[in-house]
Amino acid sequence: MELITVTIDNPDGLNLILGHSHFIKTVEDVFEAMVNGVAGAKFGIAFCEASDKCLVRYTGTDPELIELAQKNAYALSAGHSFIVFMKDMFPINVLNAIKAVPEVCRIFCATANPVEVIIARTEQGRGILGVIDGFASRGIETKEDMEARKGLLRAIGYKQ
Amino acid sequence: MELITVTIDNPDGLNLILGHSHFIKTVEDVFEAMVNGVAGAKFGIAFCEASDKCLVRYTGTDPELIELAQKNAYALSAGHSFIVFMKDMFPINVLNAIKAVPEVCRIFCATANPVEVIIARTEQGRGILGVIDGFASRGIETKEDMEARKGLLRAIGYKQ
Amino acid sequence: MELITVTIDNPDGLNLILGHSHFIKTVEDVFEAMVNGVAGAKFGIAFCEASDKCLVRYTGTDPELIELAQKNAYALSAGHSFIVFMKDMFPINVLNAIKAVPEVCRIFCATANPVEVIIARTEQGRGILGVIDGFASRGIETKEDMEARKGLLRAIGYKQ
Amino acid sequence: MELITVTIDNPDGLNLILGHSHFIKTVEDVFEAMVNGVAGAKFGIAFCEASDKCLVRYTGTDPELIELAQKNAYALSAGHSFIVFMKDMFPINVLNAIKAVPEVCRIFCATANPVEVIIARTEQGRGILGVIDGFASRGIETKEDMEARKGLLRAIGYKQ
Amino acid sequence: MELITVTIDNPDGLNLILGHSHFIKTVEDVFEAMVNGVAGAKFGIAFCEASDKCLVRYTGTDPELIELAQKNAYALSAGHSFIVFMKDMFPINVLNAIKAVPEVCRIFCATANPVEVIIARTEQGRGILGVIDGFASRGIETKEDMEARKGLLRAIGYKQ
Amino acid sequence: MELITVTIDNPDGLNLILGHSHFIKTVEDVFEAMVNGVAGAKFGIAFCEASDKCLVRYTGTDPELIELAQKNAYALSAGHSFIVFMKDMFPINVLNAIKAVPEVCRIFCATANPVEVIIARTEQGRGILGVIDGFASRGIETKEDMEARKGLLRAIGYKQ
Repeated sequence: MELITVTIDNPDGLNLILGHSHFIKTVEDVFEAMVNGVAGAKFGIAFCEASDKCLVRYTGTDPELIELAQKNAYALSAGHSFIVFMKDMFPINVLNAIKAVPEVCRIFCATANPVEVIIARTEQGRGILGVIDGFASRGIETKEDMEARKGLLRAIGYKQ
Repeated sequence: MELITVTIDNPDGLNLILGHSHFIKTVEDVFEAMVNGVAGAKFGIAFCEASDKCLVRYTGTDPELIELAQKNAYALSAGHSFIVFMKDMFPINVLNAIKAVPEVCRIFCATANPVEVIIARTEQGRGILGVIDGFASRGIETKEDMEARKGLLRAIGYKQ
Repeated sequence: MELITVTIDNPDGLNLILGHSHFIKTVEDVFEAMVNGVAGAKFGIAFCEASDKCLVRYTGTDPELIELAQKNAYALSAGHSFIVFMKDMFPINVLNAIKAVPEVCRIFCATANPVEVIIARTEQGRGILGVIDGFASRGIETKEDMEARKGLLRAIGYKQ
Repeated sequence: MELITVTIDNPDGLNLILGHSHFIKTVEDVFEAMVNGVAGAKFGIAFCEASDKCLVRYTGTDPELIELAQKNAYALSAGHSFIVFMKDMFPINVLNAIKAVPEVCRIFCATANPVEVIIARTEQGRGILGVIDGFASRGIETKEDMEARKGLLRAIGYKQ
Repeated sequence: MELITVTIDNPDGLNLILGHSHFIKTVEDVFEAMVNGVAGAKFGIAFCEASDKCLVRYTGTDPELIELAQKNAYALSAGHSFIVFMKDMFPINVLNAIKAVPEVCRIFCATANPVEVIIARTEQGRGILGVIDGFASRGIETKEDMEARKGLLRAIGYKQ
Repeated sequence: MELITVTIDNPDGLNLILGHSHFIKTVEDVFEAMVNGVAGAKFGIAFCEASDKCLVRYTGTDPELIELAQKNAYALSAGHSFIVFMKDMFPINVLNAIKAVPEVCRIFCATANPVEVIIARTEQGRGILGVIDGFASRGIETKEDMEARKGLLRAIGYKQ
């Protein structure tokens, strides 16, 4: 077994969700979770089928995002993993719906940060061990940082 | 710290669910999630207690599946992990109920594929880092593959 | 990429929850999940912001637990990870509420055991691959162990 | 406004679920919740569209159960209500999945008892106010009744 | 006890959600469910406090929708009920998040149809018994209606 | 069919949850939801079995609260309804867990207010149509009321 690092190709810093599921139905069910959550959602999904034809299965509403999802899923080639890229919406709009898809196992990350994916590779196949999501911590927030954080969440309307 | 790979022993290619929880109550609660979900469910569960006696705790409705779960949990020996083997039913029937068990943390995989489990081993103990679930991707689906995929899900009754 | 092991500093063997999320709102939302779940909850939360200022963000109801959370989050320095330490309550009281926080991705562990966290470190940052939660298995429970387990869960009131 | 009582027509005492939703997509989404939950599920669903054509919309896997659902939904004629009849499975297998369908509002009952539905009728339309689900209470259980109840749940495998 | 019918005042046929909760925190928590679900959500919420000052509590992001919610909640005056009016979004985008708010009890309806609310009024107060949501059924769909329904859901992108 | 009003007997103004379920397993499952949610929870549950012996089934951790639940459930005698009385804890601590019990259909109210229950009574049995939960609205909050409301939620620690 060997560990490799795959960097997600995300030139425009779009939001993405990376997860693990268990069935090609994932493609249609994650699609439905996206469109139920956001009217006119723009996204692309790709899923690494892990048996039989072992194809990258895909769908979505935006050709560029579909292509981005395909390319990254194929670069990962980790059985039963899936990736969603989205535009003009946020992971928080749909993450609980995706977590509740009956064949979704777990979510590795939901982020617009640079992502490096740590993959174990064996003769059998490839599996995601974890992700490096953005950057390492540089310190602990001060009282001023805290005020700014709370202020920001209220300014952009998430909290009252 | 050392990485090892444990291959799940699953000679009949049964469906299994592998997860991480935090309490020996997991054994009874996952049992209940299984029987609530599927009348007459045939399954075996084993859970790696991570403190005190550190025993593989188990239950189920089918002696062979219980034995399979015990054997694999013991081969993993990863504190607070659990594994469920099932027959005549599918992970999709129960996965959301298991995700909602109040002490379940996360699900690594739900699959009938060959599984290799990547484990970190230290002097203290052992922990699951991830899984290789089936096989690596061999390409991207064509329009024909997509039609076949959609047709299959409708032929077996999952979609209309 | 290099693997390192960080031991959680938890001198009093308190219960903790370690997870991965995607937004600084996590700090306030996990706070609310805790206080909704347990009246008078005593806890500290810290979250590793993964972009911009990359600060350890924190809150809670108990100064010592907040400090413990800060210190451990900073030792992990894994982007978008969070840790909660709690007292006079149990992870089972709040784990489902935390899993349902709309920006929470996954939970690595919920435990009062010694925990070693396996981290991948690259030039970009740091990410959690998994945890060693307590100790490796030492055997399979006997019928007597099983009776004792079931008796215990009933004696402490979790089952009838 | 006038109150009327509609008795559910259920000659074989089948299990049924009666609820309120908000969209004709309910028909397909409840179908999917049923087939995800139970492999080979036998059921019929009918939903009272409440605007536009105001038709009883239906689907299912068993012609007799579909017809039973149609007939009862039409007898109710309460806008946005739906009813599911099932065989060889139980409401407990699918009820949480149906509660989680994104357009389902609430569940009135899930039962194999005789059901009378209390309906408010106005010039505009009809709405369900509540149900009489089985029979009124005849007393409080004794210690012997309690033992029998607990024993039954364990004998049929729901509890350990 | 007397039954009265209150017609929801909704001149533009906006989508609304009507429910029952148990705490003035409902106002802020439903607000957060809305903004988590839909970026830039336009809505107004009003909640009938049922003790102490018994005021209609409100919030939102759009003054007209807030006023509409206030007016309708006050017309209902049913303790612990709440109503949300929304624009440029759909109940399906947020209904599961609202159902999951920890103090929400149940949802009466989510609809853009005309709604009549059946209320019980006593000396003590007022309570919602149910709703007439749109219109009574006018028939059972034919095969052609069914094809049109399925086609519509696919044309507007909810199903594939 | 006749409508009657049953006033909940709750001399100490305790918090209660009133709901509708579909199976005597409700008694044990709601018990488990309560003890999972709150360590040392004090409560009593009673459930109106709706077929067979039609007994009020009950359990709990506090004899007085059990008796209160029994008495009120029997006064309601509405098939498949249940009621929980609790002390030193709040409905918000457990309501989502109870909503997620696989046989629970809906929650009528969760409140410490005076409650009147509107019941339909027929020859067959009795069913809950709705509740009057506290008192009717007396006005719309002013800006000062709003500030006081927000301040209160922050003073008692629910919001930051």
